[in-house]
Amino acid sequence: MSRYLSKRLEDLEEYVPGEQPRDKKYIKLNTNESPFPPSPAVYEVLSRSAADNLRLYSDPCCTSLTETLCGVYGLKPENVVFGNGSDEILSFAFTAFCDSDTPAVFADITYGFYKVFAALNCIPFRQIPLKSDFSICPEDYINAGGTIFIANPNAPTGLILTESEIRRILEGNPDNVVVIDEAYIDFGGQSMLPLIGEYKNLLIVQTFSKSRSLAGARLGFAAGCPELIADLQKIRNSNNPYNINRLTQALGEAVLKDNEYFIKCTSEIIKNRTYMTDGLKSLGFSVIPSSANFVFAKHEAYDGGMLYRALKNKGVLVRHFDAPRISQYNRITVGSKAEADALLKAADEILRM
Amino acid sequence: MSRYLSKRLEDLEEYVPGEQPRDKKYIKLNTNESPFPPSPAVYEVLSRSAADNLRLYSDPCCTSLTETLCGVYGLKPENVVFGNGSDEILSFAFTAFCDSDTPAVFADITYGFYKVFAALNCIPFRQIPLKSDFSICPEDYINAGGTIFIANPNAPTGLILTESEIRRILEGNPDNVVVIDEAYIDFGGQSMLPLIGEYKNLLIVQTFSKSRSLAGARLGFAAGCPELIADLQKIRNSNNPYNINRLTQALGEAVLKDNEYFIKCTSEIIKNRTYMTDGLKSLGFSVIPSSANFVFAKHEAYDGGMLYRALKNKGVLVRHFDAPRISQYNRITVGSKAEADALLKAADEILRM
Repeated sequence: MSRYLSKRLEDLEEYVPGEQPRDKKYIKLNTNESPFPPSPAVYEVLSRSAADNLRLYSDPCCTSLTETLCGVYGLKPENVVFGNGSDEILSFAFTAFCDSDTPAVFADITYGFYKVFAALNCIPFRQIPLKSDFSICPEDYINAGGTIFIANPNAPTGLILTESEIRRILEGNPDNVVVIDEAYIDFGGQSMLPLIGEYKNLLIVQTFSKSRSLAGARLGFAAGCPELIADLQKIRNSNNPYNINRLTQALGEAVLKDNEYFIKCTSEIIKNRTYMTDGLKSLGFSVIPSSANFVFAKHEAYDGGMLYRALKNKGVLVRHFDAPRISQYNRITVGSKAEADALLKAADEILRM
Repeated sequence: MSRYLSKRLEDLEEYVPGEQPRDKKYIKLNTNESPFPPSPAVYEVLSRSAADNLRLYSDPCCTSLTETLCGVYGLKPENVVFGNGSDEILSFAFTAFCDSDTPAVFADITYGFYKVFAALNCIPFRQIPLKSDFSICPEDYINAGGTIFIANPNAPTGLILTESEIRRILEGNPDNVVVIDEAYIDFGGQSMLPLIGEYKNLLIVQTFSKSRSLAGARLGFAAGCPELIADLQKIRNSNNPYNINRLTQALGEAVLKDNEYFIKCTSEIIKNRTYMTDGLKSLGFSVIPSSANFVFAKHEAYDGGMLYRALKNKGVLVRHFDAPRISQYNRITVGSKAEADALLKAADEILRM
């Protein structure tokens, strides 16, 4: 830290992303990426003429990408704003809708970045404990007195709220924004996108990093009523109006247009999730029912942190959170069937030792 | 605006980027892009395997890109941080080094985004008037009492400070960071990068958008002593650790490695700048001596705003700022020789009418 850093940020604890190791080749089941490449349509995007046009700024309005997204989801351009990954959109939402009078409110066990965004923006936050089965109790969120952030499905648990539960939370907080972070919604969950016309306080955030195999291209979006989106556009334009580069805009458009491939990949993940869950259970793991592209699992006979390290030794990378209530669990990305087999084989060997 | 937007941001006036018109084809001399495509080395980057790897997150440390940049500029990895364009880096610097006790200090006529970053971060700012010839008086910046932001060369004037003038400012503000925004330094100016070992309060910001023809890929960086860079890394990691996407990291590396092409393009711009300046002068324009890839020019016989509109009518887009002291000027990007000829022909026709 330099002596010039603003005092208000001295204690800021930054987010620690999942390991991106460079030491050796792992079966990488730790950051919820897709095992499948993006739609083959992206090859056409990365053309010679695309490269030549890189000398020109990208469209700050993402006009063409917006039109395509709106076509897919039945939205209007004024319902949508894009971010450099959904993290940037979440960061904008913390800046826009929270302040010293409006704390952020989220679960004690959820996406670890919410806490960091609050700290960066010097915003107070309140954590609401999950129930003992790790589910969210909607009643705990009525009149929450702040801007609510709910990952749905939740991470790292994989549990999902129903539409009626989310409606109850929206209706129980008319004076506050409720952000539903649908990063993992495409793996069998029900998106709340159809509700944005009904609720002025509903903001939905999605990402292209998981179900659309574009983690490396960085693209996310928020959808909501025009007023909420105008607020986020204001933050975006005051921060980085050219936040989405040319290639990512084109890549996003290409994958949105290939719905068949999208369905094929997400269906495959759902199938592999069942396969991996069954396999883990047969090895004696408790596995929380997941609606995401990962499962959260523990084994009574083996410490969570030790299992993480033993798997890493065997070349399988999963994510362990050394945090209260969940230190016995590991979050395991659902990859290909071959990756699931490698994980199950490694876990079996470890448990037999 | 929604009723949920934080009160502190109600009066926020967002940045207005230069026009990116879609109505017709213009000779686009309004946003200081390069007339040349990026180095041909980028074609190899946009390969099939690059597309396949997009499913994986980008390297949050930009390891390979950092090594390449350090090789080019004689820096160490701890001296460097990358941003999604230099705007993001500037935004991080406002967040890190300014607060209610440490205002931002910059010229009254300079990059328009500084004011917006201050407003977004709710930071007070002080503007120091340029001299009547639009030059910066270094003495005005001694003990400035805040974090200083100087675009060098300045935009939209194109005027540049010497090394000794910048040293005076650095030494006159030991308790504050001095940010030198070198977005336009590669067109004949002298970079202050060699000074970062000497001054703990020097932060240099550069972009790949101008001299490296990658405006559409969004890449910028800051260089400074390890402590300042650690502060910016902390902000970056608390905001968006995967801020640079995979393709942009690879593109940045490719163009850095092609130094020959870089020299060729920047030399051509410098040559075209002289050509365009001479042409404008022969039409009766006053042209401020520019060290950037644009010139700032006015004509006694023709109103600045009217000239902007007349040129636009003729299909030539330049940038006019309807602001105090500079409303008679237009900022004209130095493009190719053919673009300069088109501009000069259009201006000649307008002045003859």
